Amino acid sequence: MTHSEQRKAVALVSGGLDSTVSLAVAKSEGFDVYALTVSYGQRHSVEIASAKQVCDFFAVVDHHILDLDLRCFGGSALTDNLEVPKGLKPGESGIPITYVPARNTVFLSLALSWADALGARDIFLGVSSVDYSGYPDCRPEFIRSFENTANLGTRAVDDDHKFIIHTPVIALTKADTVKLGISLGVDFSLTWSCYDPTPTGHPCGRCDSCQLRAKGFEEAGFADPLSVK
Amino acid sequence: MTHSEQRKAVALVSGGLDSTVSLAVAKSEGFDVYALTVSYGQRHSVEIASAKQVCDFFAVVDHHILDLDLRCFGGSALTDNLEVPKGLKPGESGIPITYVPARNTVFLSLALSWADALGARDIFLGVSSVDYSGYPDCRPEFIRSFENTANLGTRAVDDDHKFIIHTPVIALTKADTVKLGISLGVDFSLTWSCYDPTPTGHPCGRCDSCQLRAKGFEEAGFADPLSVK
Repeated sequence: MTHSEQRKAVALVSGGLDSTVSLAVAKSEGFDVYALTVSYGQRHSVEIASAKQVCDFFAVVDHHILDLDLRCFGGSALTDNLEVPKGLKPGESGIPITYVPARNTVFLSLALSWADALGARDIFLGVSSVDYSGYPDCRPEFIRSFENTANLGTRAVDDDHKFIIHTPVIALTKADTVKLGISLGVDFSLTWSCYDPTPTGHPCGRCDSCQLRAKGFEEAGFADPLSVK
Repeated sequence: MTHSEQRKAVALVSGGLDSTVSLAVAKSEGFDVYALTVSYGQRHSVEIASAKQVCDFFAVVDHHILDLDLRCFGGSALTDNLEVPKGLKPGESGIPITYVPARNTVFLSLALSWADALGARDIFLGVSSVDYSGYPDCRPEFIRSFENTANLGTRAVDDDHKFIIHTPVIALTKADTVKLGISLGVDFSLTWSCYDPTPTGHPCGRCDSCQLRAKGFEEAGFADPLSVK
């Protein structure tokens, strides 16, 4: 493996807050970033536009937007015609209906395919096990298991340099993620969080994702540039 | 989990010999099969037509053909404009240039997404660690690791019924796979193996896949219905 390959990383970029801060961490660690956005038929396609802006801002080497229609499988309020739930229900247990079946396994496998083709061994994913504790594929034990699978099922099997799945915000609250992003120069006005934008293209302010974001900025002591635009 | 969910399985069907026999095994075990074919920009798109024929033959409940362009990532003779190697080189070590980066991780993750949405926990994959010993993602240790990842990153985490990745031909020679298929009534004239068909749509007879198939039928003591068509 060459030195230049060792500095390549693939980052999954959704245009949301967590993946943008994770991308900022990859850049701050000196990686040449290849950004991957998966357009999976989600209703909040405005995220794709945000992903492009974020990738431009961080001057990634390449940005792939991959079309993959997970709607054909069904099973989630984010891809089906189910109503997106409004209001945080912190006492509720179980897996939220906004869970897209095996989404992070699919996303990581696509990032892995590109990384293996590039000779890269570093993948950045913006998941949080704090804010999304109900999603099984946001937990550290899932990430470590995927990493092991990646090292058994790719060219890394013959290589001393093994895959690392970096999840720099996995243990952070949304407030700490906001603070980390601000310390790394993230322009949060470029990001997008809402699951259910209004017909005029504004955040609804009511979905789980909007409320988590608002709470994060409030607790971090910063104004959300998106809400004051 | 209901009884009907327990009888659902997702099978990855390429139209090739190994995945067809694996599908036949799933049917013989009484599963209601949901077949998934990934159209990943491979040059041998005639496989897709074979996959449809095979799925019709086995009367699957549903057959999804999912477009996913892995060519954008590059890195394989099967998806790039690299020459497909001719002739078996059994003494060669290392990973063949026909390896598509992380292909089985991507395919299994897509099957997993569908299975999780269906409430199914059984996935059938037609890989052989005998004939494709150079591919890291055809080995049992990779399959077991993916299974573990699947059980950590999906709704199975809250469920006593865990994912099983069935690989019924993983330890079989091509000859034994042919014999198994014949015992299960597989019509091999519907299948396709060639990586590099002629302009008139016939198997080249020279690529690794054609030679493995010919050797399998010969050792099994059967005529390949495709070669006598």
